Amino acid sequence: MSSRVLAADLPRYVGARVRVAGWVHRRRRLKSVTFVVVRDRSGLAQVVLRGAAPPEETVVEVHATVSANPRAPGGVELTEPVVETLAEAVPPPFDLYRPAVTASLPAILDHAPVALRHPALKERFAVAAAAVRGFRSTLDSRGFTEVHTPKIVASATESGGCVFGIDYFGRPAYLAQSPQFFKQALVGVFERVYEVGPVFRAEPHDTARHLAQYTSLDVELGFIRDHHDVMAVLREVLAGMSDPALVTVPEEIPEIHFAAAVDLLEADPREPDLAPAHERALSEWARREHGSDFLFVTGYPMAKRPFYTHPDPARPRYSNSFDLLFRGVELVTGGQRLHRHADYLAVLGDAAPEYADYLQAFAHGMPPHGGFAIGLERWTARLLGAANVREVTLFPRDLHRLTP
Amino acid sequence: MSSRVLAADLPRYVGARVRVAGWVHRRRRLKSVTFVVVRDRSGLAQVVLRGAAPPEETVVEVHATVSANPRAPGGVELTEPVVETLAEAVPPPFDLYRPAVTASLPAILDHAPVALRHPALKERFAVAAAAVRGFRSTLDSRGFTEVHTPKIVASATESGGCVFGIDYFGRPAYLAQSPQFFKQALVGVFERVYEVGPVFRAEPHDTARHLAQYTSLDVELGFIRDHHDVMAVLREVLAGMSDPALVTVPEEIPEIHFAAAVDLLEADPREPDLAPAHERALSEWARREHGSDFLFVTGYPMAKRPFYTHPDPARPRYSNSFDLLFRGVELVTGGQRLHRHADYLAVLGDAAPEYADYLQAFAHGMPPHGGFAIGLERWTARLLGAANVREVTLFPRDLHRLTP
Repeated sequence: MSSRVLAADLPRYVGARVRVAGWVHRRRRLKSVTFVVVRDRSGLAQVVLRGAAPPEETVVEVHATVSANPRAPGGVELTEPVVETLAEAVPPPFDLYRPAVTASLPAILDHAPVALRHPALKERFAVAAAAVRGFRSTLDSRGFTEVHTPKIVASATESGGCVFGIDYFGRPAYLAQSPQFFKQALVGVFERVYEVGPVFRAEPHDTARHLAQYTSLDVELGFIRDHHDVMAVLREVLAGMSDPALVTVPEEIPEIHFAAAVDLLEADPREPDLAPAHERALSEWARREHGSDFLFVTGYPMAKRPFYTHPDPARPRYSNSFDLLFRGVELVTGGQRLHRHADYLAVLGDAAPEYADYLQAFAHGMPPHGGFAIGLERWTARLLGAANVREVTLFPRDLHRLTP
Repeated sequence: MSSRVLAADLPRYVGARVRVAGWVHRRRRLKSVTFVVVRDRSGLAQVVLRGAAPPEETVVEVHATVSANPRAPGGVELTEPVVETLAEAVPPPFDLYRPAVTASLPAILDHAPVALRHPALKERFAVAAAAVRGFRSTLDSRGFTEVHTPKIVASATESGGCVFGIDYFGRPAYLAQSPQFFKQALVGVFERVYEVGPVFRAEPHDTARHLAQYTSLDVELGFIRDHHDVMAVLREVLAGMSDPALVTVPEEIPEIHFAAAVDLLEADPREPDLAPAHERALSEWARREHGSDFLFVTGYPMAKRPFYTHPDPARPRYSNSFDLLFRGVELVTGGQRLHRHADYLAVLGDAAPEYADYLQAFAHGMPPHGGFAIGLERWTARLLGAANVREVTLFPRDLHRLTP
């Protein structure tokens, strides 16, 4: 049997007899012939058929001659075809051949196994896969080790609420909200680590940017001076993740301190955090003043950061932490962490025994370190201008959705 | 401040003043000097110190001169040092500088955040990370798309027992035992997909090869003729994952049909599966007869394979499935799946409505397809000759262990 030729490769086979396989993407019946467009993972191929064509989404194998035709997609079409049906199909609930999917987002999500076949929807996940590939290759070349940490944890101590409970062999356990504690401990082992994996948030919010499970791109590194070393790695990572056709990461991402941002926004100086409207305004400012889609906001007040956050030694009310704003939204949170055992004992106080496993690493010597986490779906959504993270999630899970 | 030099790079700096940073790995006090070995992510550096040295695992920064000394590790040592303590440390519960860790496996696992710093333990995870990198690069170059699928699912229908239950916003849900259903549906979208991610098994067995969470390397591809196309991809993947110093993957992995294996073993022909002793005997046979550490056993009886398994069209009692044995144990399970909607309706019968989400993809046309899953920890364990998968898992989760 001749080996299969992908649609995108057909122009190299003009005059040859080939075997193509894919899904019937579209049928157009003219008076004497039917044009059948076959879709495979590489693109589309036009088949000129005499007689009836099978319905949309039928899986077919086509033996045919590749003929040049400047008016056909790709400049070629398949003539004298012998079409074999590999699997029959019920036509999809909405047309996959139209330029845009006309169905509502809930209808698309309900029918994800077939809706995702739409070339425009499918393409989003190629962008996401390329971003993850760039994330890893950037870090692999900088001495980072990829790790896989537990998603089932004994306590919900990391940040309190919003955790899913599990029945773990009759004992209570929880789904990990992040690999934070593990990646810190692993700085003690590998110095530089990253993980690509699911994280779980029992988010009671039904918004366009929250999911119950998302893919977190986590990084942590040791032997830093302060959070600026972490931000430098993040800048390299973002450059590695970016398709130049969609975004440019500046050589130096502009930075504004939280206190300066509050001044600029004329916001309430007693508020320890920025509101979404503030983030949008700051992003516009960065675009206007620095020509940048990215902005680092550094030095958030300690009051609103997690307990492991390292304070700014010069101004201890502020932290050595940062958020990265990208096109109006917070994309990344990161910063320097506490590294001295005594500092953890001081901030945890009476709660320290609950954190005994976490504190092991610090008791036995941890270097100054820090890290960050990028939400893959948020990144892809902002990159592609998708209004809702569900548009860039294959099978989203949220307050109301647990299927398909 | 001068930039940090890694221990492994010191031979390039003989005569220079450098900054090194790491953990105090070992102290050896002689009459007039103390040798302090500093460990960083690249290796070890010997510092010649006059006066007292800080205890093991103290995090230090050392400014010193690189001096050639053929008797020192790496041929260099650090002289005229100025040592600064970055973080104090309690000495570890067992010596990390001895060639092998003398503690028991439970003690190692209890103290994982510090035990993993032992160079021999840490090295295992570099092997695992390299294997995953090879897995991905092999598939990336063959038109596969990386995907991220839900780990929270609505029903425990895939294989029945051994699932963890979750409280999902007040509704029952389950941790996914595998991405099987999702990866099949995604063949309809991308044709070729892979996923590296955690899978969860509520294994009531306390054995050396079972974990409650492990890292599954999942592959699925469409437009195959039968399971041999899947096995060919698996062979390429294994070659990409292998360190030639540890294992050789033959150009063609030998294959034996289940029925022939039963004859060879003189086993009970009514038994639809192989016992662990059978797997060991077959592995030894492959080693002896074919000089191969790997053996495909194909055509397992349908009776013991999951419902989506494709039968052998010529002998429907047997399946188009395979196991890959590696050095005596089953490493990979895979095969061709059913792809016609009508076949699923026939095998599921009255239970079909429970699988409505899964069946969507098949109703709308699915090509002949198949795939496999490799357990990362099993692979690494067999590669390194580790007797227990816990030895190659950073923070294992099992029937009795939920921390650290």
